[in-house]
Amino acid sequence: MTNHLITFDVASAPVKVPTGTLLAEAARLAGVEIGQPCGGQGRCGRCAVQITSGGVRRRSTVRLSPEDVANGWALACQTVAEADATVMVPPQEKIERRLTTDRTVADVTVPEGYSPSYVQTLQRIRLELNPPSMDDQTDDWSRLQLALRQQARLNRVDATLSLLQKAGTILREGNWQVTAILDVQEEADHGRLLHLLPGRIEDDAPLWGIAVDIGTTTVTVWLVDVTTGEVKAQASEYNGQIARGEDVVSRIIYASKGDGLAELRSLVLGTINELTQTACNRAKAQPVEVVKAAIAGNSTMMHLLLGIPAVSIRLSPFVTAVNQPPLLTASEVGLCIHPDATVDCLPGVASYVGADISAGVLSSGVYQTEKLTLFMDVGTNGEIVLGSREWLVTCACSAGPAFEGAGVAHGMRATRGAIEEVWINGDTYEPTYRIIGGGRPRGLCGSGLISLLAEMLLTGLVDKAGNVNASLRTARVREGEHGWEYVVAWAGETDHEHDIAITRVDIDNLLRAKAAIYAGFSVLANSVGIPLDWVEQVLIGGSFGKYLNVEKAVQIGLLPDMPWEKFQFLGNTSVRGAYYALLDREARARLKDIAARMTYIELSADNSFYEAFTSALFLPHTEMSKFPTVEAALQR
Amino acid sequence: MTNHLITFDVASAPVKVPTGTLLAEAARLAGVEIGQPCGGQGRCGRCAVQITSGGVRRRSTVRLSPEDVANGWALACQTVAEADATVMVPPQEKIERRLTTDRTVADVTVPEGYSPSYVQTLQRIRLELNPPSMDDQTDDWSRLQLALRQQARLNRVDATLSLLQKAGTILREGNWQVTAILDVQEEADHGRLLHLLPGRIEDDAPLWGIAVDIGTTTVTVWLVDVTTGEVKAQASEYNGQIARGEDVVSRIIYASKGDGLAELRSLVLGTINELTQTACNRAKAQPVEVVKAAIAGNSTMMHLLLGIPAVSIRLSPFVTAVNQPPLLTASEVGLCIHPDATVDCLPGVASYVGADISAGVLSSGVYQTEKLTLFMDVGTNGEIVLGSREWLVTCACSAGPAFEGAGVAHGMRATRGAIEEVWINGDTYEPTYRIIGGGRPRGLCGSGLISLLAEMLLTGLVDKAGNVNASLRTARVREGEHGWEYVVAWAGETDHEHDIAITRVDIDNLLRAKAAIYAGFSVLANSVGIPLDWVEQVLIGGSFGKYLNVEKAVQIGLLPDMPWEKFQFLGNTSVRGAYYALLDREARARLKDIAARMTYIELSADNSFYEAFTSALFLPHTEMSKFPTVEAALQR
Repeated sequence: MTNHLITFDVASAPVKVPTGTLLAEAARLAGVEIGQPCGGQGRCGRCAVQITSGGVRRRSTVRLSPEDVANGWALACQTVAEADATVMVPPQEKIERRLTTDRTVADVTVPEGYSPSYVQTLQRIRLELNPPSMDDQTDDWSRLQLALRQQARLNRVDATLSLLQKAGTILREGNWQVTAILDVQEEADHGRLLHLLPGRIEDDAPLWGIAVDIGTTTVTVWLVDVTTGEVKAQASEYNGQIARGEDVVSRIIYASKGDGLAELRSLVLGTINELTQTACNRAKAQPVEVVKAAIAGNSTMMHLLLGIPAVSIRLSPFVTAVNQPPLLTASEVGLCIHPDATVDCLPGVASYVGADISAGVLSSGVYQTEKLTLFMDVGTNGEIVLGSREWLVTCACSAGPAFEGAGVAHGMRATRGAIEEVWINGDTYEPTYRIIGGGRPRGLCGSGLISLLAEMLLTGLVDKAGNVNASLRTARVREGEHGWEYVVAWAGETDHEHDIAITRVDIDNLLRAKAAIYAGFSVLANSVGIPLDWVEQVLIGGSFGKYLNVEKAVQIGLLPDMPWEKFQFLGNTSVRGAYYALLDREARARLKDIAARMTYIELSADNSFYEAFTSALFLPHTEMSKFPTVEAALQR
Repeated sequence: MTNHLITFDVASAPVKVPTGTLLAEAARLAGVEIGQPCGGQGRCGRCAVQITSGGVRRRSTVRLSPEDVANGWALACQTVAEADATVMVPPQEKIERRLTTDRTVADVTVPEGYSPSYVQTLQRIRLELNPPSMDDQTDDWSRLQLALRQQARLNRVDATLSLLQKAGTILREGNWQVTAILDVQEEADHGRLLHLLPGRIEDDAPLWGIAVDIGTTTVTVWLVDVTTGEVKAQASEYNGQIARGEDVVSRIIYASKGDGLAELRSLVLGTINELTQTACNRAKAQPVEVVKAAIAGNSTMMHLLLGIPAVSIRLSPFVTAVNQPPLLTASEVGLCIHPDATVDCLPGVASYVGADISAGVLSSGVYQTEKLTLFMDVGTNGEIVLGSREWLVTCACSAGPAFEGAGVAHGMRATRGAIEEVWINGDTYEPTYRIIGGGRPRGLCGSGLISLLAEMLLTGLVDKAGNVNASLRTARVREGEHGWEYVVAWAGETDHEHDIAITRVDIDNLLRAKAAIYAGFSVLANSVGIPLDWVEQVLIGGSFGKYLNVEKAVQIGLLPDMPWEKFQFLGNTSVRGAYYALLDREARARLKDIAARMTYIELSADNSFYEAFTSALFLPHTEMSKFPTVEAALQR
């Protein structure tokens, strides 16, 4: 048997190995550490190395694109030496980024600044007024209105009573030099005076607004300096309503009893107000300095925020009380920011396609692309939009909160301590996992659950129907309180010293969630008579986008089996849309147009939905032909 | 001496009396009761009888017009028999009405209905909506807006959050048949949905609004059925702020300290809310059914109502914070009516010419007359407008609350128990008085005070400087705690069993009040270079108008000495203006125009004012030539 000299760039010396030796083994001999979380099964892609010269044979390239292979990449666990070779081992951290971040936008990766050409909704204007005199006894408010109309070229300026109560004092305190903050909304000649400050404010002083996304499970607040468009801080947390029901339907039921509506309203206000305070602390701002809020969220969340009964959302024919709430003030809504701040609750489309989706269609650019696009926002509900600049159809499928880590025994939000990716050794059934922020695991977030389920399928730990295989020889499969379960982490290795496991109940929840979404794709495509594979790009919004592995999502049948490059993860498109609407008068107008243009398809009225849903309740699907790459992987 | 047969229509038989016998004496002999409150001095006019045939000689006709005399009227105490005569004695009640009501409009004499051609600000619209279905999932609010826009021909319909919170429930409760109440204000294509009721409401069901006048001393509320324009009830009461200062300046000072502003705001709200409740009780309505309030009042009252600091009103250059408050809701203002009711605080002109005067100019018709008109509103302040349809100048003089019965030892409002007219016998100095509502007296209202002061002047009880003549032989003149005083009613004859007297301090207050007003007339006429006697009519608004006797008011120098027929008493022109604005969209627009058109003359900046004021601090005036009829009366 011929020996070959393998030179690892990070090793002190080459090693000599016989033909057919795995590069992973050669690396071990050379003293080079290459991670193999999946136990050398070629599934995780974490042992990718680059062959810079020499001859190797790749047994499997399933984690590599043709371009990767052309560029010399190979999986160390699936590649054998056939000649002398030089191998570059990238730092582990670099591999991880390549596998995940390239196609994701993190929640925390917020824009550094918005297009410089936008027309601000908020205007800060310095005024030097002529003081009143015996020859000019014009009242304060007329004096102020006249100056504002002239300087801001407005036809009309309004103010709240509370501003009128303060204006005279501020005008005199500033000795008739004041700074006015105006909100100019849809009608460009009509402004609302939000705030008046004595004296002059530096032009580069921040002018604060917040963009808010109220998800059923997670609430996100961006604190924005609207003078620059810069997002200065962000904060997100579980919606305080979560203990009163995990999905919109249970919230609506809760709200319809006794003081439930008032309680849920107060809970979500508590969450938003706390997040705003947190974000302000980070940016050294005061909540009372925040003069505008743009709020996106699904229709139920918007109703509950505003104390509007949501009961009609749940009952046929499923209508909202209001899709386009009027502009309100913070004190009316109950937000702890400047009491006269404008609160702009963005327009929604229907009961289950709310302002979060209008905002997502705006921020993802679906409304202006020429490509046939599938846009999905996976939160507690899964809303789907199909279309382009020409037309937009949309539907909603009740996915439940599983992908947000709720409604699952050891689920958690995608924050520090969450297991975000899992690999399972097909021989030993021992898992390896990656934890957000490192350290010891605390639970499984949505992407972790998807990854775990996909690995369990590929290793035979579950069958296509989601049943845990109880016959396997491993202590990790055991019978628990909720039937058979698989232990991902033993108590001793966790942060809280309890086992982290996935149960049969969890698996059913995940199956229903992914089936609802996949059925939505099918029905929507059918409704316009377009096969799913005509779709040119799939844009994915939602809180789990950052960590989601497309391959795993396809393996469980959550996403259609398409080439990876069609998928793009956009993170929280809802809060981003709210951010655009907060800043830009034209974006706000487009948002209204988008909401008006989307054609809503009611899945509950669509006979084909339940069939599609039932078919999708398998891993990946009853029709395996729709998932050729998964079929191939299972055969391996 | 010849005897004459005098036949009284109400007597059982004629009486025979010698030539020169007073008809009053003949009546006594015939057993006919003719009241002579002034003690037979020919001053009160209460003994007027009508000579239907025969010969009499009138010694004095001072209380009778030439037409009266031509029609046979004579004063029984001033007319002697010279031949046989037939005399008709009208019922006492009829005489009283003739003397007062002909030229007054009582506060309680409210319009029975407004012009049928007006364009209502409030609209009640029956809607039959198509219920939502799976084919029409339009949200409730869009469905409602669309129907309203179509039926009310509006471009835009707004609503408060609280209405949106209720709308869905009401729509379903009414099974998609609802009655909407809309307020359509200045912009005729822009409506606000105030109220939504399930089902249909009868067309003749009342639709309630209130017209409110907030005087410094007195608050008046009219409860109006806006479908007919009928005033269904009215109530008025002292402004609850009165204990915190009797005039606007002392209120402003009180409001500028500590929580004074909040306290005064809450006090006046308390008064309005109580009056509204009272009026509603009378009309069997509920305050929560009241969907609109139109509020007039002086500028200080308006500021205090809205919690807006009024301090700049008091300090040079005397500007208000706001002359034209925006439309507000009842819940913002703090009125206990329908929380979403529109509150329309009418526009004012300047610090001391408020919405009460704009409203008065509207309701009195000054703004559309061709006659040169002097309009005055005498409340705690005296505001004066001079002009016609062509031009309007206005000024304000600080009269103090004396004419509203406040700031005077035994003063009271013109309600039941108030002495409203006084006559004093020139020989005995014994008074006779008339009491509002009859019964025992409780105090003196403004007209009673004016009447009393005039009588005291004519009988020599006071001199021109207002000093009480201490040398007269009557127990009614005595030295009291506040100097010399005159007792109008002894404890035994009063309701509360305390003497009712007028003190030197009271007289000074009355002198300053009337001097301020008369000086205002002078300065205003001077400012446009017009002599006072070019004025063709004097329209008098204000709460004491009902009972005021022009002759007495001229005698003390409050009103200029002009023929009586030039004077017209209009009662509370402010609440009447508010009433027009409540009902009629065009009246509301005119009101804005009036406020914009009035030229304000600041008396405190006018050097001639103090001179005019000082000259008017006498009874009736230093220049007696300005008051020829008073000079003549004093000589009698």
